[in-house]
Amino acid sequence: MAKRVIKLDLEKPSLKDNRGDGDRLISGIKHNLKTNKNIYIDFELLKQLPYLLRKWDYKLKCVLFRERDRYQVVGVLPPDENKIPYGLAVDLGTTRVVLRLIDLETGKTVGDFGFDNPQIEIAPDILDRIHYSDTKGGLEKLRDMITGGLNNAIKNFCAKHGASSRDIYIITIAGNTAMTHLLLGITPHWVIREPYIPAVNDPGILEASYMGMEAGRFARVLVFPNVGSYFGGDLIAGILFSGMNKTEDVAILVDVGTNAEVILGNKDWLIACAGAAGPALESGVSKMGMLAGPGVIETVTIDPETREILYETIENKPPKGMCGSGIIDLAAHLFLSGMIDIRGKFVPEKCGDRLKIKNEIPCIVVVPEKDSATGRDLTMSQVDIDSLIRSKAAMYTILETITASVGMTPRDLENFYVAGTFGSFIKPKSAITIGMIPDLPLECYKALGNSSLEGAAMALMMDECLDEIDKIRNRITYIELNVNQELMNRFSAAKFLPHTEPSLFPSVKVWG
Amino acid sequence: MAKRVIKLDLEKPSLKDNRGDGDRLISGIKHNLKTNKNIYIDFELLKQLPYLLRKWDYKLKCVLFRERDRYQVVGVLPPDENKIPYGLAVDLGTTRVVLRLIDLETGKTVGDFGFDNPQIEIAPDILDRIHYSDTKGGLEKLRDMITGGLNNAIKNFCAKHGASSRDIYIITIAGNTAMTHLLLGITPHWVIREPYIPAVNDPGILEASYMGMEAGRFARVLVFPNVGSYFGGDLIAGILFSGMNKTEDVAILVDVGTNAEVILGNKDWLIACAGAAGPALESGVSKMGMLAGPGVIETVTIDPETREILYETIENKPPKGMCGSGIIDLAAHLFLSGMIDIRGKFVPEKCGDRLKIKNEIPCIVVVPEKDSATGRDLTMSQVDIDSLIRSKAAMYTILETITASVGMTPRDLENFYVAGTFGSFIKPKSAITIGMIPDLPLECYKALGNSSLEGAAMALMMDECLDEIDKIRNRITYIELNVNQELMNRFSAAKFLPHTEPSLFPSVKVWG
Repeated sequence: MAKRVIKLDLEKPSLKDNRGDGDRLISGIKHNLKTNKNIYIDFELLKQLPYLLRKWDYKLKCVLFRERDRYQVVGVLPPDENKIPYGLAVDLGTTRVVLRLIDLETGKTVGDFGFDNPQIEIAPDILDRIHYSDTKGGLEKLRDMITGGLNNAIKNFCAKHGASSRDIYIITIAGNTAMTHLLLGITPHWVIREPYIPAVNDPGILEASYMGMEAGRFARVLVFPNVGSYFGGDLIAGILFSGMNKTEDVAILVDVGTNAEVILGNKDWLIACAGAAGPALESGVSKMGMLAGPGVIETVTIDPETREILYETIENKPPKGMCGSGIIDLAAHLFLSGMIDIRGKFVPEKCGDRLKIKNEIPCIVVVPEKDSATGRDLTMSQVDIDSLIRSKAAMYTILETITASVGMTPRDLENFYVAGTFGSFIKPKSAITIGMIPDLPLECYKALGNSSLEGAAMALMMDECLDEIDKIRNRITYIELNVNQELMNRFSAAKFLPHTEPSLFPSVKVWG
Repeated sequence: MAKRVIKLDLEKPSLKDNRGDGDRLISGIKHNLKTNKNIYIDFELLKQLPYLLRKWDYKLKCVLFRERDRYQVVGVLPPDENKIPYGLAVDLGTTRVVLRLIDLETGKTVGDFGFDNPQIEIAPDILDRIHYSDTKGGLEKLRDMITGGLNNAIKNFCAKHGASSRDIYIITIAGNTAMTHLLLGITPHWVIREPYIPAVNDPGILEASYMGMEAGRFARVLVFPNVGSYFGGDLIAGILFSGMNKTEDVAILVDVGTNAEVILGNKDWLIACAGAAGPALESGVSKMGMLAGPGVIETVTIDPETREILYETIENKPPKGMCGSGIIDLAAHLFLSGMIDIRGKFVPEKCGDRLKIKNEIPCIVVVPEKDSATGRDLTMSQVDIDSLIRSKAAMYTILETITASVGMTPRDLENFYVAGTFGSFIKPKSAITIGMIPDLPLECYKALGNSSLEGAAMALMMDECLDEIDKIRNRITYIELNVNQELMNRFSAAKFLPHTEPSLFPSVKVWG
């Protein structure tokens, strides 16, 4: 952990030591940090120093942040100040924004705080927001919405902890490429247009005041860089948190949101690709697919004897729908119990009276209307299952393609990291059963949680991570998934449960 | 000479090369400069880049400045722009400010331009200005006066050369410590108070827009750092221009203004000191002492036969007064002709009727009233001569003391640089005759002219000089001249013409 806050007791000026106040502070810092790097002090602060140092009798606390080849003084405090200097890590999500307040002296987390991205009011979908940003005043409006949301959250969250937003000296923000552009008021116009180049890849370290963010007068904001339009700073933060950029073993990191983003590599190389595998998994796969929340089914099993469908809801509330992990659980158990075949088609004789036809489409009743919170049957239709199978096939195809590009297969992986809320909920066993992810020992799978926030928090406190951000960015090769015959062959083969080639999934055993 | 302006023809984006515009520009610059240093682009420019690069079809001119460990993009221009990108070097004098406009593509000087420091309206003397800056609104007023003066000069000077102030991308400014503080709106309060520490020693490279200076949107201003209250950026610029910081031989640099500032050293070490030796030399030594200008006597000789005083005035106008070099000439010839003795006292039998008593003080008539432009005798009194002798003794004492501090004597010097207007006018031969400067071969003496301006201009075009500024600043040891017995002894010995010890001035031969 780097020292972000140092206590200094500077030599007082005398006829024998008539260095200027700026020089005096700089050499005090260099001495304390035992560094030869350049130290930068904002000019406005330099102007105030003579007054402050005399008032404080040349004793002070100094807050520092590192910017590549130099240190930046981001704040000075009186030596006996009992206010804590804070840092703030931000996961800038399209849907949800999460903040973490960190004590810069100890590196300890004070608390997390989340709020819905206010831009949702304009459009929940990022693509629509990008189009909106092209309209007159649209970009500024979107920028002001997210900045305003952040400032509100900062103010309230700081107040809750007996602090003020002025006590924040360093902010790190990780978000996807489009969200980063919108936060900075930079047009995301070209992000979605061939050849898909972002206006800015590396915004660097900016002044909080410049960005209109509530924080200390000299506070700095590190905005995570992106690798390209489809590979944002949130993923760089994720890689940082996974630690895959530091290990000898080859690992894979999968982040499923609207897209499935996949990174493969180790300390020497990293390759990445993205594909549209997401929507079916997180929500929207079926009429009952929804985000996790009270009453949402997250676990499903089927009794091997009775074929009764058993489920658990979040907070044990009456069932109102099903989230991604519940859907995958259900599909896995339908397959294991023989209620769907290897093509994912319902097997009526196994389903019994749980199989109904609604609007001419066969569907399985998971929760009958009498038990459901909505008063209607919660079902999964053949259309839903077909869609899920396409999604899982797409995911497996991506995994096969990216590993094949370096002469590996998915089963050669040692570590399989799953990021995001999806990662927190997915159960590897069920996902393996339907052939969405490779048949690795379960201990290979690791859910990272909010890896974007965690990575941002690491950069806040560790200089090494600041270096790693650049290294990761420079090392990543982004590969386009070309829709060629080989990819289509892989996709077709993956459209079976678990796969056309069952030997790839030796652990998957259908009952009886 | 560094490349400040480079022409780039960037690879256009494609699906195979989807780097962002900022990255694209940065790698274009790195490739062109063959550097691995970090390249920084102002965030506002980064935001405009996507539009500009597309408009210019990825061809552009890019203006760069180096800031220690990084390059800063200070401007971009369309590739076929026939406007010249300019740099501006500034000598920020207490009395006079001089600008030099330089073509950044060729490094050639376009022209020089000077104006009187508008702060003179508040007070001609820097000490009075410092006191004024402590009054309410005083600091801001002084800052606005000098900034306004610079902006006016920039506008007019640019217009004269068919350019606009927006065409200026880099500005370098060298001034004394107090003037630098006043320009930056930093209090010079502590500059004149024990232990004499400036608020800011190294302002670094600032945004022109931040300083309120008329220039390109992303232009940068390098303000020369100072070593201390009595050793400003103007002297660092002077050292830079003299080149003494790069030679094996030990050289001395003397800059006489209000103070005499002296630097001794070579490529390995530099020591400096300052003493009040100035006023008598530049002006104010006598009622007739004045700044150089038309009608001012700048050369004086005395006919060895007739003891007639011969003089030359600037522009051959009728004589109205005498400047420093004229006064030294006169004193030297009065001594050589025996009209004053080794104590500087008039020898009536040698002076004849040119010696008059005015207000009970003996004085020599240089120009009788009939020939004078003022209608009165131009004279030099015994008081004037006594004052000059104290000044010259002070100067020689400083030279003896600083050389003695490294075990040398003034006569060991190989190169003797004289900076400033004083340096341009002083005639070494006369100055040696009165024992003001050591008896070195005349070719050792080199007048540097406006070395502050020249040094600023060098930093504008040469990265090596930017490094040297830091090196000089770090290497200089500033020594206080302690008024101890040894110094007083030296001073007493130097209060004779040329010196108590004539063997120190073997070339000085009194006539007959």
